[in-house]
Amino acid sequence: MHKLVLIRHGESTWNLENRFTGWTDVDLTPTGVEQAKAAGRLLKAEGYDFDLCYTSVLKRATRTLWHCLDEMDRTWLPVAHSWRLNERHYGGLQGLNKAETARKYGDAQVLAWRRSYDTPPPPLEPGDPRSERGDVRYAKLDPAQVPLTECLKDTVARVLPFWNESMSAAIKSGRRVVVAAHGNSIRALVKYLDGISDSDIVGLNIPNGIPLVYELDEHLKPLRSYYLGDAEAAVRAAAAVAHQGKA
Amino acid sequence: MHKLVLIRHGESTWNLENRFTGWTDVDLTPTGVEQAKAAGRLLKAEGYDFDLCYTSVLKRATRTLWHCLDEMDRTWLPVAHSWRLNERHYGGLQGLNKAETARKYGDAQVLAWRRSYDTPPPPLEPGDPRSERGDVRYAKLDPAQVPLTECLKDTVARVLPFWNESMSAAIKSGRRVVVAAHGNSIRALVKYLDGISDSDIVGLNIPNGIPLVYELDEHLKPLRSYYLGDAEAAVRAAAAVAHQGKA
Repeated sequence: MHKLVLIRHGESTWNLENRFTGWTDVDLTPTGVEQAKAAGRLLKAEGYDFDLCYTSVLKRATRTLWHCLDEMDRTWLPVAHSWRLNERHYGGLQGLNKAETARKYGDAQVLAWRRSYDTPPPPLEPGDPRSERGDVRYAKLDPAQVPLTECLKDTVARVLPFWNESMSAAIKSGRRVVVAAHGNSIRALVKYLDGISDSDIVGLNIPNGIPLVYELDEHLKPLRSYYLGDAEAAVRAAAAVAHQGKA
Repeated sequence: MHKLVLIRHGESTWNLENRFTGWTDVDLTPTGVEQAKAAGRLLKAEGYDFDLCYTSVLKRATRTLWHCLDEMDRTWLPVAHSWRLNERHYGGLQGLNKAETARKYGDAQVLAWRRSYDTPPPPLEPGDPRSERGDVRYAKLDPAQVPLTECLKDTVARVLPFWNESMSAAIKSGRRVVVAAHGNSIRALVKYLDGISDSDIVGLNIPNGIPLVYELDEHLKPLRSYYLGDAEAAVRAAAAVAHQGKA
């Protein structure tokens, strides 16, 4: 039996300002730092340990991982970064306030962008200063791999190759894996692991900074999954995520 | 032409308490954190950038690297940890105050332990609670590879395989490499690169938190090397290192 732990980053500055973030590389708030440290303390207290860590190339996820590892006295563990674990790209909405956007376009349109499986927000123009196509961390990718917008379906499509080509082999080899990532890259993994339908996945919310444990059989089929710690707190935190982006 | 940057970690709690540290995994002081951040700001201001980072499995080096990368907005860079970049193991002196040890054994004996090339301090007993042989981060090593004490010659002998088998190939491939490590693991690299004699290397001191740049030719022979920033400050900091461990 394998265990896999998924952690969404702690609260970011744009979570706090209620802005669409996507690939914009904002940092954690002090609350987010505390959430990350609490996750590390909880993992340690519950006897978890790891051999290999995965995270995105965005600092809110990396820093969440670093704080976790620090609390676990595991700052020496290997860490693999992949852009494939980045948050869903939010296109032309990146940087906009969610409530303002809802007032401008209506709750229904924003809910469609946020929660439909296959409707992406308006794309960034390639020359938009918000575009990541000039960012050195993506310089070795085919430019077509650097999105200008994504729907959740697109995010799933670029997360799963990383699962299939890297993460799953590491887990099957017996390495204990922790992933510090983002709401939608974690949703992509959860959708795949639990076989959740396109319509149901959009209603599933991942709370910030609460370790989500998967117990997997030898073929990496889930036996069960659960949030560590206070289950009611996890439900409340997930509900708070669902409530963002209402006018 | 290749550039290689070496950084000794910032001031640690046991630097401040004037204790022999070795493989004991002490953290940075607030001053050490500031030194690490200043190194990152300096590297960024001077136009340095990297593709690959190396560090030890000790948190004072890892955290120095993390703070540097944070200041450079490069938290997403790959980091390889190796025990071979650890500080020299200080054997039975680990945890002892340097001045007290000098009063007890005499300046000459302590200077011999600190600065002779091939005289190791008294070894730890394998069952000593200070021994790292039960530490999970070394669990996959042959126990004989986990030292009970080291002279600088021993440190050089276990650092160089890592240079030869990993770092040099990365640099030759064109990757820009930064190494955050320790006084004696950096000495080992400097000794090898500059062809310094056994007797001269013991008089060479590496200051905390000041980037040391090597410009290397295609065969990784040094063309020149220099500390970044205030050269006089680097000399003063190195002199302060040399003065530790006097009664």
